[in-house]
Amino acid sequence: MSAIRPVFYVSDGTGITAETIGHSLLTQFADTLFSTDRIPFVDSEERAREAADRIRAKGEEVGVRPVVVSSCVDPELTRLIGESGALVLDIFAPFVEPMERELGQQRKSQVGQAHGMVDFKTYHARINAMNYALTHDDGIAINYDDADLILVAVSRAGKTPTCVYLALHYGVRAANYPLTEEDLEHDRLPPRLRPYRSKLFALSIDPERLHQIREERRPNSRYAQLDTCKREVAAAESLFRAERIPVLSTTHKSIEEIASTVLTTLGIRRGMF
Amino acid sequence: MSAIRPVFYVSDGTGITAETIGHSLLTQFADTLFSTDRIPFVDSEERAREAADRIRAKGEEVGVRPVVVSSCVDPELTRLIGESGALVLDIFAPFVEPMERELGQQRKSQVGQAHGMVDFKTYHARINAMNYALTHDDGIAINYDDADLILVAVSRAGKTPTCVYLALHYGVRAANYPLTEEDLEHDRLPPRLRPYRSKLFALSIDPERLHQIREERRPNSRYAQLDTCKREVAAAESLFRAERIPVLSTTHKSIEEIASTVLTTLGIRRGMF
Repeated sequence: MSAIRPVFYVSDGTGITAETIGHSLLTQFADTLFSTDRIPFVDSEERAREAADRIRAKGEEVGVRPVVVSSCVDPELTRLIGESGALVLDIFAPFVEPMERELGQQRKSQVGQAHGMVDFKTYHARINAMNYALTHDDGIAINYDDADLILVAVSRAGKTPTCVYLALHYGVRAANYPLTEEDLEHDRLPPRLRPYRSKLFALSIDPERLHQIREERRPNSRYAQLDTCKREVAAAESLFRAERIPVLSTTHKSIEEIASTVLTTLGIRRGMF
Repeated sequence: MSAIRPVFYVSDGTGITAETIGHSLLTQFADTLFSTDRIPFVDSEERAREAADRIRAKGEEVGVRPVVVSSCVDPELTRLIGESGALVLDIFAPFVEPMERELGQQRKSQVGQAHGMVDFKTYHARINAMNYALTHDDGIAINYDDADLILVAVSRAGKTPTCVYLALHYGVRAANYPLTEEDLEHDRLPPRLRPYRSKLFALSIDPERLHQIREERRPNSRYAQLDTCKREVAAAESLFRAERIPVLSTTHKSIEEIASTVLTTLGIRRGMF
């Protein structure tokens, strides 16, 4: 049994870029146990030295060489962090030279820009999309004209987290429509949705899983019963088929995968926040 | 004026890792105009060839060599994408060899794992944290015992987006407490918050900016008046100082920066989703 390997995500900004790529890299080494820690806002030599001290101390404490995933744009800061003795992976360094050659220009080392507030207007659009998702979450009294897309599903199939994710990360105005028992009696779209056919995307879910989720929310209710879940899911899937609405099962998908699939399917192209 | 350079984020999974590092890289080349597009779920040779065709066609259409940021774990897929003629930046390749040497083990090429659903329990904790944020958003009738942290601020200072972000990305149960006019008459914490002092983090905001945001929500209301905003912000800041609550101004910060600062300040350590 080897020791737990300490990993530090070090950044001149939030550290989100370093952590995102670092996490992806660590999942490829599943045989090693890692402990992870983030050191954001390392934007001066003083902070870089403090970070290096902390990393060195951790390595000495556990007796294993730490790994640093660094997204500091200034190479001097990354060099100072390297004095900790850690294995330093500089996530931009390998790509800067090929990009400079390809574009015929030098990169500019603006510190901490990637997840900073780029401009007020864009930021505002993002917040508005999120407010939209939160206030259009119950399907009641909604005007769908403003929606970029509408997720349709039975209760607890994953609509809300997906809408919030789409708003937060893509600035997309995502509304949702929870299918009621009455809706499910017909193999046709509810009248309110018919004018918005091109905006619709359906979510489905394994009835057993739906049962688990609903049980946690309202234990021993008719709503949560396995029979109810089976009946609702079957009726919803039949409706989606009849109306040819694109559908994705959320059972084995993360929020990120659902969101990515929805955007690709509906052909919505937005930059990511 | 040079042509717009097409950039493709290509991935065997959602493409979020590729887009995150790609976006960070592009912000360092501010003199070039880029158009960006994502091609997720490229998990077979067939899809890699389709992606290559699409990328080649785009390059021929605009007359500029495209750039591909690839997070495909299987090097064969990345090689096929390279047949498009694009400049391919493989975001894992430079780090795999140093990591293999350091850890003394080979990486395992599981496709599309980084933002996939890792395990049901973790995923469930994340969804529960988000439901927590959404149902604990108004500060009314909340039991704060379960909260990992509580954001305190006047209305529209940025509490809700930050709580939702913390839930979605860190699985942190973030509640919030909107300071009322009555609360602001005193330089002391509202009684309900006093037992939870160690969980508190305060947000402040520039009154002019608050005024803009509130005007959009309730035009020409007393709530949105600049005078009201100035008075509320001054009273809130005075309260935070008197009670020594850590405070951050959200005016020039992104949601990511606010979230990262809150976690670092309160010493909450969680892996990122």
